[in-house]
Amino acid sequence: MNACMNEGAIIEWLAIPAALPDAGARQVAEARQSQLTKPPGALGRLEAIAIRLAALQGTEQPCVDKVHITVFAGDHGVAAEGVSAFPQAVTAERVKNFARGGAAICTAARTLGAPLEVINLGTAHDTGPLERVKDCHLGPGTANFTLEPAMDVYQLGRALGVGRHAAERARLNGAQLFIGGEMGIGNTTAASALACALLDAPPEHLAGPGTGLDTHGVTHKIEVIRRALACHSTHHGTPLEALRRLGGFEIAALTGAYIACAHIGLPVLVDGFISSVAALAAVRLCPGSGEWLLFSHTSAEPGHRAVLEALDARPLLDLGLRLGEGSGAAVAVPLLRMACALHNEMATFAEAGVSAATGILPVAALARPCASEKSE
Amino acid sequence: MNACMNEGAIIEWLAIPAALPDAGARQVAEARQSQLTKPPGALGRLEAIAIRLAALQGTEQPCVDKVHITVFAGDHGVAAEGVSAFPQAVTAERVKNFARGGAAICTAARTLGAPLEVINLGTAHDTGPLERVKDCHLGPGTANFTLEPAMDVYQLGRALGVGRHAAERARLNGAQLFIGGEMGIGNTTAASALACALLDAPPEHLAGPGTGLDTHGVTHKIEVIRRALACHSTHHGTPLEALRRLGGFEIAALTGAYIACAHIGLPVLVDGFISSVAALAAVRLCPGSGEWLLFSHTSAEPGHRAVLEALDARPLLDLGLRLGEGSGAAVAVPLLRMACALHNEMATFAEAGVSAATGILPVAALARPCASEKSE
Repeated sequence: MNACMNEGAIIEWLAIPAALPDAGARQVAEARQSQLTKPPGALGRLEAIAIRLAALQGTEQPCVDKVHITVFAGDHGVAAEGVSAFPQAVTAERVKNFARGGAAICTAARTLGAPLEVINLGTAHDTGPLERVKDCHLGPGTANFTLEPAMDVYQLGRALGVGRHAAERARLNGAQLFIGGEMGIGNTTAASALACALLDAPPEHLAGPGTGLDTHGVTHKIEVIRRALACHSTHHGTPLEALRRLGGFEIAALTGAYIACAHIGLPVLVDGFISSVAALAAVRLCPGSGEWLLFSHTSAEPGHRAVLEALDARPLLDLGLRLGEGSGAAVAVPLLRMACALHNEMATFAEAGVSAATGILPVAALARPCASEKSE
Repeated sequence: MNACMNEGAIIEWLAIPAALPDAGARQVAEARQSQLTKPPGALGRLEAIAIRLAALQGTEQPCVDKVHITVFAGDHGVAAEGVSAFPQAVTAERVKNFARGGAAICTAARTLGAPLEVINLGTAHDTGPLERVKDCHLGPGTANFTLEPAMDVYQLGRALGVGRHAAERARLNGAQLFIGGEMGIGNTTAASALACALLDAPPEHLAGPGTGLDTHGVTHKIEVIRRALACHSTHHGTPLEALRRLGGFEIAALTGAYIACAHIGLPVLVDGFISSVAALAAVRLCPGSGEWLLFSHTSAEPGHRAVLEALDARPLLDLGLRLGEGSGAAVAVPLLRMACALHNEMATFAEAGVSAATGILPVAALARPCASEKSE
């Protein structure tokens, strides 16, 4: 499987600076928006999205028809602490459901006409060989980070590299937008712990029910994260070390993918809570990478809001989604496509004026506010 | 133009009771949702949407691939009071832009593969004959409702009937979802005045900048609405009379369309502020019709929230849209389609279990919360 070849502990590539959005294309797109046959601003955030995508893609007329989705799966040693409503075997079962095409992200990808790849970075239970799943096994899940670092340096480097290579494959395949998904029982605990370290926030501000803990379960989860933070408190000072000690294989892969997308100039649509924590790690590791990240939805997981705030991110949707797999990002893709279509295909005042050879005032003139009426 | 034949002042059809959603189909759809391979509730509001559409369409597997969009246009006599940032001639110009395919709703309809029809109920300025616009002229706009009723009984009946026939054409053409749009300079003033009457609310709670009034303009608009409400205060006690005195041709057409959709059992996706006020009138005129109305987005127009609250409506999107034309509803259609696709195409636990002949625990068993872990 070439997806996981050559990912060593070498992580110097993280230091490559992020590409810069195209300021010229942004200006041209802004000018185009102001000429479309509608009152200025009437399409709200869809206008800003089209302009931003134009700047990221370096074109007046952006397009996200070609979307690449990679789902990263991995297990978490911290699951041994009883932090999930589901047993660890579910990770492998859900990877098999990805392979069968039965999962939500499979349906969403089909609906979008988007290729979907699934990469198993290390499940605790063997899935057996699966036709549509790339096997990049780094171990039977991470170590229990209440006792030791989740990953060794080699695993971290490999996981970051798996993400990097997914982004590069997406670009090679002509993708105009990258979506990363994740699956791993226990990964809201890992993401919460990592966010606590990156934001210097207490676990009760970030931990939530995940896929279905009750109040008692959340209290226990907070206690587990508190122990983990205490265990690593003198070591998680750098974002990379925080990611290694408190993250997970799939979280590190997402971080690597987001940074690589920023390097190669490929816009990203970020999914929910776990993905946003990976995005936070990416932005801390590669400061300019945030420019390349669009945020799809606000998750039902309560800690998501704090992470989004730290990222100065304002997602498009708020539908109470909390599935992961990249599903929330996939659900939001049609909004980006609609923003592009409106930006690219609506008539400009000039176009409308030219074809309106009826002797009536040109539309462009009519679209300006009428001073005499405004002053009444 | 058969679109506007036979709409007389006869409005007895409004009293037909709304169709009832299919409780059995709802139950079957709920059962299906609980069997999909994801934690219960993880797809948030998309689950509820699929179940609701299943009940409305009377099927376990709902579908909104076929969408019918009708945009109703008309001018407003109250424009003479200087309540809009744009001159009245813009209504006719925008109707011509619909005919040319240059407007936002034209692009959105093409993107959705949805047929779009445009009906001119009466613009102040002549558009000339337009190939793709149905002409159902009821006059050069409504009367100035600060001085007299906006419509006479005949105009009201015709406008309601134009909407009814649009809904019936949609059904005949096999539509699975109806979207109504509107265009008319001054129609946020009419909609605000009508909402004030229906909700017994003061104009300052409902009037806003519309397509671009400044603070001074909004203050003036409030004063105009106050005058109109005073003029009709002893007469607008019934919803129908409020609609006739304070509404508009396109608002009445939307109301008629929504009521007819409820009669024939065709789900509706409501657009923004104007459309929601028409929906409020529909619900007051035909109490069960609210069951058939889904709400697409919260408009930037501040009064929209009060109207939505009165309708107990929770729209899907909040993107600062304020264009009208049905554009916000069109933007939300892919969310309904995604909800249906996920509901219809995701694997159930049984399907996953059957095909997972690997000797590992069946997925259905694994998907239940693990009691021993939860109790830790």
